[in-house]
Amino acid sequence: MVRPVLEYAPLKLIIGNKNYSSWSMRPWLAAKSAGIRFEEQIIWLRHPETSAMIKATSAAGKVPILIHGDIMVHESIAILEYLAEIAPNLWPEDRESRAHARAISAEIHAGFLPLRRNCPMNIKRQPKAIALDDETRASVERVVDLIIDCRTRFGSGGDFLFGADFNNADAMWAPVVNRLHAYDIKVPAAVRRYMEAVMTTPMWREWEAAALEETETIVDIDSV
Amino acid sequence: MVRPVLEYAPLKLIIGNKNYSSWSMRPWLAAKSAGIRFEEQIIWLRHPETSAMIKATSAAGKVPILIHGDIMVHESIAILEYLAEIAPNLWPEDRESRAHARAISAEIHAGFLPLRRNCPMNIKRQPKAIALDDETRASVERVVDLIIDCRTRFGSGGDFLFGADFNNADAMWAPVVNRLHAYDIKVPAAVRRYMEAVMTTPMWREWEAAALEETETIVDIDSV
Repeated sequence: MVRPVLEYAPLKLIIGNKNYSSWSMRPWLAAKSAGIRFEEQIIWLRHPETSAMIKATSAAGKVPILIHGDIMVHESIAILEYLAEIAPNLWPEDRESRAHARAISAEIHAGFLPLRRNCPMNIKRQPKAIALDDETRASVERVVDLIIDCRTRFGSGGDFLFGADFNNADAMWAPVVNRLHAYDIKVPAAVRRYMEAVMTTPMWREWEAAALEETETIVDIDSV
Repeated sequence: MVRPVLEYAPLKLIIGNKNYSSWSMRPWLAAKSAGIRFEEQIIWLRHPETSAMIKATSAAGKVPILIHGDIMVHESIAILEYLAEIAPNLWPEDRESRAHARAISAEIHAGFLPLRRNCPMNIKRQPKAIALDDETRASVERVVDLIIDCRTRFGSGGDFLFGADFNNADAMWAPVVNRLHAYDIKVPAAVRRYMEAVMTTPMWREWEAAALEETETIVDIDSV
């Protein structure tokens, strides 16, 4: 199929609440970090009409959704691959680094359920510790090991997982950064430094500022 | 980093039981379908030493693991991306098709939990229906819709999800094909035709034959 003007078609990202939607945060941060321009549309989560509104665009019924011309992409990790075809430096250039970046992105996509379930992303939350069960502690241990291992093996050129550039793997891991921060989970200094690097990027600040202005609330997340 | 001889380095795939390991089946089928040569190593699942044996190679503690020269890749979806860098036709050439292939691969990577939990892959199982709860039925409905939608929009050139070529998306969905078959779940004729196409590929037959010869059993899967 020939799409001569696709490169000039506008991109649109359909996302959920910036305060709560960890999946939405990922492609949004990645696109911003790569300088890819897009418009955004927010569908508020947990309203009676939320599901119908999302399904009007995508049968999968989940945000985020990327729309580019007549192409629609669902699933954050697939959107990140799509963005990387537009901006290849969203994955590391070195083959081994790129493979590992994809592996840890896939790992956070489907794994660490106890941490994700018990410590939901919540940008507005003032850092405050909660009791963690053994499963959640095990998730945190693997998260910590993985960040330190990745920084040690691939990150020596800068502050991010793979060095100087914030890339798709950092985007996939960004909600974890919020979880460690918001639930005041004790981590080694090297992990805290990585978290600070992520949380002081311009795109994180922009996302955070918008989240702080949201008046929509989800009570059972705020009550954790 | 310069790796002048990597193209000639042997590939090795570490997998679990062919009868039960849905994650392992995916990169194995993909590599075979693309004609990528590799050696395999099986680590039997659910033995007391299984976890330690896997962790001796990968801290993530899961199979499959791909080893290529000094590169190690974990997570099946990341391995499929790695294989597609060696054999690009493992993803569709058209950008929209490729994006959708990745999206539905990501969807099966983390979704359809009720179907995956209640109908575990079991190659040896003689087709036999079980009672399905509402959640599992909902999973099946989405699976059916997704296969029909994909075949209709992208598959007209052949028998697979994206037409003539078995690709990474078919590999990701292969365990679902076994689930629908083994638990004798009623599906529309178009889905059954797709299942037959997958189950008659040479690589499926090869995997199946090896699974049938395995004497290792996992009682709680066999007792479903």
